[in-house]
Amino acid sequence: MEFVERFNGSGLLIDVEEIIYDSKGLQHIQIFKTKDFGVMLVLDGKIQLTERDEAFYHEMLVHPVMITHENPKKVLVIGGGDGGAVREILKHDPNEVVLVEIDREVVNACKRYVGIDRGALNDPRVNLLFEDGLKFVRDCKEHFDVIVVDGTDPNPVSQALISREFYKNCAKICDYLATQSQSPFVQGKYFKSIYANADFRFKRVYLGFVPTYPHGLWSYLIASDRFEVLPSFEVLRERFEKREIETIYYTPEVHVSAFALPKWIQNLISK
Amino acid sequence: MEFVERFNGSGLLIDVEEIIYDSKGLQHIQIFKTKDFGVMLVLDGKIQLTERDEAFYHEMLVHPVMITHENPKKVLVIGGGDGGAVREILKHDPNEVVLVEIDREVVNACKRYVGIDRGALNDPRVNLLFEDGLKFVRDCKEHFDVIVVDGTDPNPVSQALISREFYKNCAKICDYLATQSQSPFVQGKYFKSIYANADFRFKRVYLGFVPTYPHGLWSYLIASDRFEVLPSFEVLRERFEKREIETIYYTPEVHVSAFALPKWIQNLISK
Repeated sequence: MEFVERFNGSGLLIDVEEIIYDSKGLQHIQIFKTKDFGVMLVLDGKIQLTERDEAFYHEMLVHPVMITHENPKKVLVIGGGDGGAVREILKHDPNEVVLVEIDREVVNACKRYVGIDRGALNDPRVNLLFEDGLKFVRDCKEHFDVIVVDGTDPNPVSQALISREFYKNCAKICDYLATQSQSPFVQGKYFKSIYANADFRFKRVYLGFVPTYPHGLWSYLIASDRFEVLPSFEVLRERFEKREIETIYYTPEVHVSAFALPKWIQNLISK
Repeated sequence: MEFVERFNGSGLLIDVEEIIYDSKGLQHIQIFKTKDFGVMLVLDGKIQLTERDEAFYHEMLVHPVMITHENPKKVLVIGGGDGGAVREILKHDPNEVVLVEIDREVVNACKRYVGIDRGALNDPRVNLLFEDGLKFVRDCKEHFDVIVVDGTDPNPVSQALISREFYKNCAKICDYLATQSQSPFVQGKYFKSIYANADFRFKRVYLGFVPTYPHGLWSYLIASDRFEVLPSFEVLRERFEKREIETIYYTPEVHVSAFALPKWIQNLISK
């Protein structure tokens, strides 16, 4: 059996052995056992993660922004109901992680059938709130050291998370924000509008390989209204070593290097 | 109509509008007009290039090694019958480029139906030799400043180009060699054996995004028996600017950054 995710003029095909879960609620949630990629989570027809390469994504979403903050103790995650981002955040020993996920069923299904949170979603420092992230940041009176936005592709459920209003409200309540910012190759329009809407004083795009995302090329954005978003390599390395973080993808060298954008990607955001 | 290239447990699907060329000789050559990727060349079922992203590959295969050489005047290309590598090499103003391609039909079909060489294969500085690359370097009495190996996936025709003997003979006749070294994600075994067989005094792996190669993640190797293979950023930038090279992917920043390997790729070659 094959699962196929279609893009414009192309597609990715994954051999599937078994459908573990299939439920249509707020989103269409599908969980598959694949032949060579472990368990795979699909939302509304789009691959969110496979066990084999989810760490490439979650490490690059989380560690750059967490290490850029000198001492991140209080962290907000918007989306990310699979718990992969929270798992990586906990490696930095925060006091509190608030996860705001709009779809309770994603969390329940992932805890039961995916398991990549490796217990993180049950950690006593983690508060799960099943709310709309846009509303949460609009009404929020707290301050967070770091916000991590782990939304799905823009769709009716998640497109508020790439709006100007959302980023403006985030900027008010955090030191640093990191978000995934789609594929510059396949979704150039979304990539550009995320960069344009993220109206922060400092912002930078960086890249990473995520083999099961469209054509393997993925982008992220790190932003702050207060501080520069790329410390020196020496600072990054010192913090990485001091916090004793175990990774399979991220290194401080990869962190710095991820900001070197191919010229065609520079051109997408400089025009 | 869809073209599908299969990997282990996954595959890439490309929407095709028209079959432009289809011929079975030394290799099965197929040329398609695709919906969103321009013209596409396929050899023995494997995508070699699409117009849309071939420059990502050819620039990263060619410019790092050409810029690492202070003054590359005489260049040997093994494989690369589509002419993309030669096109990029000519931007460095060499005196002579020798292209050794085993399959004359690839050159003929690409000149006629693909055209990404943009005339490079007819440039008076370029000599086309239709020979076995393994034999050519074994018998070669000349010296080349740079050798670029642009082979297909290892198969009965091309697997000699990842053998220890081939690299040994190359090392004797050049200052620097660059080769594509397959996908660390999908073809870890080939990737590792290329690194192991390339028995040079200095060698380094680097990475680039090639969206229409397996899962978008591609690797290259640069090697030399005489010199270090990664000059300082300042040297690279100075040469890049002095030679006035136009690119859509490569920059000196991307060059240096491409050597920062995710930890799991470091692990593949350090064991």
